Amino acid sequence: MSGRLSAIRNVAPRLLTSAELVVETPGEGFTDITPEAARFVEQSGAGDGMLLLYLRHTSASLVIQENADPDVQTDLVTALHRLAPADGPWVHTAEGPDDMPSHVRAMLLPTSVAVPVEDAELRLGRWQGIYLFEHRQRGSARTCSVHIA
Amino acid sequence: MSGRLSAIRNVAPRLLTSAELVVETPGEGFTDITPEAARFVEQSGAGDGMLLLYLRHTSASLVIQENADPDVQTDLVTALHRLAPADGPWVHTAEGPDDMPSHVRAMLLPTSVAVPVEDAELRLGRWQGIYLFEHRQRGSARTCSVHIA
Amino acid sequence: MSGRLSAIRNVAPRLLTSAELVVETPGEGFTDITPEAARFVEQSGAGDGMLLLYLRHTSASLVIQENADPDVQTDLVTALHRLAPADGPWVHTAEGPDDMPSHVRAMLLPTSVAVPVEDAELRLGRWQGIYLFEHRQRGSARTCSVHIA
Repeated sequence: MSGRLSAIRNVAPRLLTSAELVVETPGEGFTDITPEAARFVEQSGAGDGMLLLYLRHTSASLVIQENADPDVQTDLVTALHRLAPADGPWVHTAEGPDDMPSHVRAMLLPTSVAVPVEDAELRLGRWQGIYLFEHRQRGSARTCSVHIA
Repeated sequence: MSGRLSAIRNVAPRLLTSAELVVETPGEGFTDITPEAARFVEQSGAGDGMLLLYLRHTSASLVIQENADPDVQTDLVTALHRLAPADGPWVHTAEGPDDMPSHVRAMLLPTSVAVPVEDAELRLGRWQGIYLFEHRQRGSARTCSVHIA
Repeated sequence: MSGRLSAIRNVAPRLLTSAELVVETPGEGFTDITPEAARFVEQSGAGDGMLLLYLRHTSASLVIQENADPDVQTDLVTALHRLAPADGPWVHTAEGPDDMPSHVRAMLLPTSVAVPVEDAELRLGRWQGIYLFEHRQRGSARTCSVHIA
C-alpha cells in the first residue's frame, strides 16, 4: 500500500449544530468565508466533527482553493470562462446572458464543502481557504446552511 | 468579515438512518429524485442531520441544479458534450463509444451530494432540485445509498 | 416517482473516529487509496456511518473512479489536460508552469469524498475505487484527514 495511516482518535458524538450564513457578494469572483466558518466552529462549542457548508443557490459555488497569491483566483475565473463561455450556444436566455454560463459553472464546481473539525479547529491545509464563488455579474445576498455533525 | 452568521441551533444526535434507492434512467439526461429524497427523510423520522446521497456508479452523477426552466437542463447537457466530446481521443473504447465520455463527465460532476435536514425537511434552496444525471446513451437501473447522520 | 426506496435501517450513533493518511505520489496521475480507506474503516471499529476523506492540498484531488481498465485513467488525464491546458493564459507562474494548471484541475475535481459505511464495509459500487489524483509533475507526500461520523 502506498499510504501511511496514523493512530486513530475516538471522540464521543456531540450535539448537531447548525446556523445560517448570509454572504453579500460584490459580483463575479471569490469571497473568502474562512473567518465566518472558523467563527461558527468556535461559537458552536463543537470539539470534533465535520463541518458542512451548503449553498442554497444554483449560480454560485463553494470552493476550497489557494489562499496565498491572488493571481490564482484571476486565473481560475479565466479558466471557468473558457470552459463555460458567455457566448455559448445556450437556449436558456430568459434571465440574462450571464445566467446560463453561471449554471454551467455551478454544475462544474461544488454546491457544498465538508471540512473536518478537530479540537475546535478547522483541519484546512496551510494553503487552503474556503470561498464563495459568485458566478453572476451582479452581486447579491447568498445564503449558506452551516452544520457540524 | 463579509458574512452574517445567524443564531446557532443545537440538537441531540439521532439514529443513523440508511436505505437504498434504485432509479431507472431513460437514457442520457436528468431524472429528478427530489421526491424520493424527501420521502426518505420523512420515513426516516430524522428531525435534524445531514442527508448523504451516494451513487454507486462511474458513468452517472448526482447533481443539485435549477428546477424551474427545463431549457437549463438542455444547456447543461450541451455544455458537458463540449467539455467531454464523444469523439475525443479516447483509448478506452471496449465498452462502446459513449462509455469513456461518460467517465470523463462523471469525473467532472459529483458522485455524492450532501443536503442539510432541519425539522425533518431538506434545506434545499427555492430553485434547487436533486437530480441523477445519466451519462450513458442507454438507460439502466442506478443504485444510490441514502443516509442521514 | 421514478425511484424505488428500500426498507430503512436504523443504527445508534458511535464514536467519531479520525486519523491522518499520508500518501506518497509518484508524480501526475492516480494512486489507489481504497485499501488504506478500507483499513481505516476496519481499524476504527465503526459499524455504520459515513467515511469522509479530506485532502489538505490545492494541487491534487480525491476522486472515485473506475477500477477495472487502466486505459480509463489514461483518458481521464488526457481529458483534464484538454480542459486545463499547461499552456493556458495563466498569470500565476511563480511556482512553475505546472502549478496553475494543477490549481484549475483541482478546482474541477473534488477535495473530499464521502462514502457510506455499513456493517464495517465501504459501500462502494463494484467498479468504484478511491484515488488520490496528483496534478503536479513531481510527486510529493500528500496528507488526507480521514473521518467516520
